[in-house]
Amino acid sequence: MSEPGTFASTTAVSSLGPDRWRAAVPAGWDVMENVNGGLLLSIAARALQAATGRPDPFSITGHFLTPGRAGSFEIATEVLREGRQLSTARALVRGADRDVLAVLGTFGELARSSEVLLSVGGPPVLPAPEDCVKVAATDSFPASLVEHVDTRLHPEDATFLEGRPSGSTTLRSWQRLPHGEAIDALGLLYLVDAHPPTIFNADFPLSWTPTLELTVHVRATPAPGWIRSVASTRFVSDGFLEVDVELWDERDLLVAQARQLALVPRPWSHPPDPTPKA
Amino acid sequence: MSEPGTFASTTAVSSLGPDRWRAAVPAGWDVMENVNGGLLLSIAARALQAATGRPDPFSITGHFLTPGRAGSFEIATEVLREGRQLSTARALVRGADRDVLAVLGTFGELARSSEVLLSVGGPPVLPAPEDCVKVAATDSFPASLVEHVDTRLHPEDATFLEGRPSGSTTLRSWQRLPHGEAIDALGLLYLVDAHPPTIFNADFPLSWTPTLELTVHVRATPAPGWIRSVASTRFVSDGFLEVDVELWDERDLLVAQARQLALVPRPWSHPPDPTPKA
Repeated sequence: MSEPGTFASTTAVSSLGPDRWRAAVPAGWDVMENVNGGLLLSIAARALQAATGRPDPFSITGHFLTPGRAGSFEIATEVLREGRQLSTARALVRGADRDVLAVLGTFGELARSSEVLLSVGGPPVLPAPEDCVKVAATDSFPASLVEHVDTRLHPEDATFLEGRPSGSTTLRSWQRLPHGEAIDALGLLYLVDAHPPTIFNADFPLSWTPTLELTVHVRATPAPGWIRSVASTRFVSDGFLEVDVELWDERDLLVAQARQLALVPRPWSHPPDPTPKA
Repeated sequence: MSEPGTFASTTAVSSLGPDRWRAAVPAGWDVMENVNGGLLLSIAARALQAATGRPDPFSITGHFLTPGRAGSFEIATEVLREGRQLSTARALVRGADRDVLAVLGTFGELARSSEVLLSVGGPPVLPAPEDCVKVAATDSFPASLVEHVDTRLHPEDATFLEGRPSGSTTLRSWQRLPHGEAIDALGLLYLVDAHPPTIFNADFPLSWTPTLELTVHVRATPAPGWIRSVASTRFVSDGFLEVDVELWDERDLLVAQARQLALVPRPWSHPPDPTPKA
């Protein structure tokens, strides 16, 4: 069993019988009391791993139904197709009293060593991690989640932390799990949603930016070490924005691509508004 | 009732009772006998429109389970959440003897006029439609689908049609439905998958490029007229590629973003290999 407080232990699921699984999320993995979406997606993926018997989510999509709160979750899974190399399955994650997340994914087994036939562009260029800006929770943005991911922002993209938004909606960062925990394919589902919102350097409130939908393609198993992330938003309209993320490992290999559709943040009040989103 | 042979009539669904719908796809909407994935996604979306009572797919994802053949389809829908502005639902599309497509989507109603707060980049720059290259079916790539979408490729991106691949994996084109049929939000789900594969200008076989998963964000209701499309692939590895698509309308407004994960095409043999993908 993995150590308490790790990503592996927090996303672990236990069987409750055929196609039913249980997970427990302690306090401290949230943004303004809402459990991080990438973490919830990772939990669903852990159940789908078990249900399909296949380790890697080639493509997985989650639609967030209501905010999740720390506590118990029950996951219902359904395998829709078992092929020779791929299985497709869906899941519904239920919190204390209602469904919080619907998931659809196709699982298989990633190649042991990657054969790259085409790669246009490469990883983001960043100063060394020790020369970047470590993200910490602040009074103005109480995200306990930052204790569970080590994020080092490019200094040019970290100016919003000091009240001087750069105007750019691209965030470049190093990411890793704390305490030397290794990152597997499911850890990538978490990292793509664990950076600060891309629009914090533009003219938007520093507040919870709820994810409506998140899709991740895991393209390769990450090598040990730091991940470099580039997250960018190009279009904000009618209350919605997209966030595109690429994750690169220390071999300069693209390991994941993700896109989410999120809601433009509303100014936050304390205590946080408990109204379900949308 | 819409005219036979139109997109509207081909994607129409009729009720078979609570949460069950029927559609019929005639021959001629396929690539090497496989019904186009965007068309199947549009059919599922039509059923989800009816099931949720909401017109517009803000975000919709389909996972393709087995190739679809022309004929009857039955769609089972399930509404997972009805919110004040958004409803999330899932669907399973069944062909003659097996499930072909699993779908998860969130529906609402798009704004009547769009408020754009941020737009980095704009529509692709193309010569006038009459100065572009109209895509037609050829002996070497028998895609009957091209009769049901009017695609005019940028001449620089059309060289693969003459056996001189440009080397670029970006395809810029004008798109519209034939016979003056208007494009609604669901028509966008079809257009994002109705262009030639992006990798036909690179060193890959001109063959069916099966979609594993397709996600579309509809960002605005399209204005009447031509749509400009830019489709690009940056990474091909381990048998997979992503295809990113943006659609812009005549107001220079982004109306949809899409990404799919597809399988690298295999050289084709005639008759087409009936083996289900993956």
